[in-house]
Amino acid sequence: MHALPAPYLLFLGDVTEPGFAKTAFGLRDWAGDRCIGEHALPNASVTTGLERLTPAEAAARGARAMVIGVANQGGVIPPGWMPELLAAIEAGLDLVAGMHRRLGEIDALREAAARHGVRLHDLRVPPADLPIATGRKRSGRRLLTVGTDCALGKKYTALAIARGLAARGVDAMFRASGQTGIMIAGQGIAIDAVIADFAAGAAELLSPDAAPEHLDVIEGQGSLFHPAYAAVSLALLHGSQPDAFVVCHQPGRQGILGTPGYPVPPIEAVIEQTVLVGRLTNPAIRCVGISLNTGGMTEQEAARVIADTGAQLGLPAADPIRGGEAFERLLDACQG
Amino acid sequence: MHALPAPYLLFLGDVTEPGFAKTAFGLRDWAGDRCIGEHALPNASVTTGLERLTPAEAAARGARAMVIGVANQGGVIPPGWMPELLAAIEAGLDLVAGMHRRLGEIDALREAAARHGVRLHDLRVPPADLPIATGRKRSGRRLLTVGTDCALGKKYTALAIARGLAARGVDAMFRASGQTGIMIAGQGIAIDAVIADFAAGAAELLSPDAAPEHLDVIEGQGSLFHPAYAAVSLALLHGSQPDAFVVCHQPGRQGILGTPGYPVPPIEAVIEQTVLVGRLTNPAIRCVGISLNTGGMTEQEAARVIADTGAQLGLPAADPIRGGEAFERLLDACQG
Repeated sequence: MHALPAPYLLFLGDVTEPGFAKTAFGLRDWAGDRCIGEHALPNASVTTGLERLTPAEAAARGARAMVIGVANQGGVIPPGWMPELLAAIEAGLDLVAGMHRRLGEIDALREAAARHGVRLHDLRVPPADLPIATGRKRSGRRLLTVGTDCALGKKYTALAIARGLAARGVDAMFRASGQTGIMIAGQGIAIDAVIADFAAGAAELLSPDAAPEHLDVIEGQGSLFHPAYAAVSLALLHGSQPDAFVVCHQPGRQGILGTPGYPVPPIEAVIEQTVLVGRLTNPAIRCVGISLNTGGMTEQEAARVIADTGAQLGLPAADPIRGGEAFERLLDACQG
Repeated sequence: MHALPAPYLLFLGDVTEPGFAKTAFGLRDWAGDRCIGEHALPNASVTTGLERLTPAEAAARGARAMVIGVANQGGVIPPGWMPELLAAIEAGLDLVAGMHRRLGEIDALREAAARHGVRLHDLRVPPADLPIATGRKRSGRRLLTVGTDCALGKKYTALAIARGLAARGVDAMFRASGQTGIMIAGQGIAIDAVIADFAAGAAELLSPDAAPEHLDVIEGQGSLFHPAYAAVSLALLHGSQPDAFVVCHQPGRQGILGTPGYPVPPIEAVIEQTVLVGRLTNPAIRCVGISLNTGGMTEQEAARVIADTGAQLGLPAADPIRGGEAFERLLDACQG
């Protein structure tokens, strides 16, 4: 399992488009206590609002890693970033990244890291020596977020449920299965980057045996109805052996992302299929609620679609970003 | 996709246990026209019956690769094999292996291969630049073997169906998804060794667009009911988008291999689940027959279980190893 040193300095590069800084915003919002400040090039126009610090200043205040909090086209590292990455290494900070281009494959970074005794964390590189899944029933409780498609709120929903339950005093913990989630949690495994044979085994490792009342809230990936990623979703479902799951959906989305000809399935179909295949490793698996991504709707529209969906399915439905009573009822159901 | 040069010289090492030479026997039986002879250490006591040739003799007769046709405990390369592997390289032969220990990670082999201009083929290393699956419907026809468990005849069944149909004049081709299958076919991708995100994409690559009447007979992997490998099976199912599938089963096997507490599912359950999840990428998917592994049974017992299974499910059932009329009826159904 990846384990990251904190606190972080968030690196924003030369970003001018807020959408490319989603990782940095996610870290500010969900791991504020792990973030000590931000560092950006002079021509960056996006800010997280955190204090601007150089790598040396951040290190002096206790930072232990600089996290690349921006994505850019192609997942490469622009030449203009290199002096800043090297300055962070020289200040004694580890580097953390989730890009396609691996930090460890760039000679200058690898050599500098070796010289200064810091580590390069490439979150797309799966940990070595992952086990084959055993299917053994583990102690403790587990909840998984699943989706009608990719990229519609599975990570956000898991974070909101874990935070909401923890605020109620429940022993609940967010478990990260993707890169940004790992940065937020400080640990985890990017399931989609694991060799297929070991993917379910990696998911087992992600939520180990725990106290009977402990609840792991596991970040889902992909969708059982996505023709490219269903296998990743299934490995995570089987290895997580969840007692409960929440279906995440974006009302109005018509087609599965990136695959023309594949409609987004009805929520009912996702519930049915998740129970059908998930019961292999947990016969008691059940759906406890629906998380709706109502971004772009008016307050009134959102309230109506949330109420309609809940009534139609006979399950608590909420948009965790909007919160409110609907979300409290979803938390009740997750608390179990 | 891996593509291997032929013909092969089969390397048997120092094997004294026929069970460890399954790969060599499989190559002799299913790719006899690609095998030019065998090479073994003096203390080996197992033979394929092919002519014994040194690497130099085999090369002189046109061999282009030496295939490691034995497995040994732990998948390592014993020191005693090294002189023979180096002799093959010096004779200008490529080396082919499917072991955990990669040929390309052994300095002496890598250096010798570079010096003599030959290649080391590690079939557990997935090809680079695999695509993400698109789910696009491809031309031609496809049949996939699936299983109630691992290691009960999915490769053998696919080979027997492809050979049987080809003998009838059908434009049928075996497609290999595992290491031994790749050696037999001379090409393929070991799906279980692919990064999870790309596994369905690799399966799409494995059976490309083809003429309308062409039939790819695709080697299945794992089982949708195996808690460790179901994701591999699902990726192969989705990427293969089969029109037809044959369920492989071993009568009498009680538990899923290596996972205590997991019973082998009924054949009916495998049919139902395969249709349910497989229809995502091919709504017309259907089961066309059952392949039974009746090894160890008397002729009479086997005939009874084959007849009973076929009658019970209303589908052609056969043991391809026993062949006979039952297998001809299974081929009729596969011919479509």
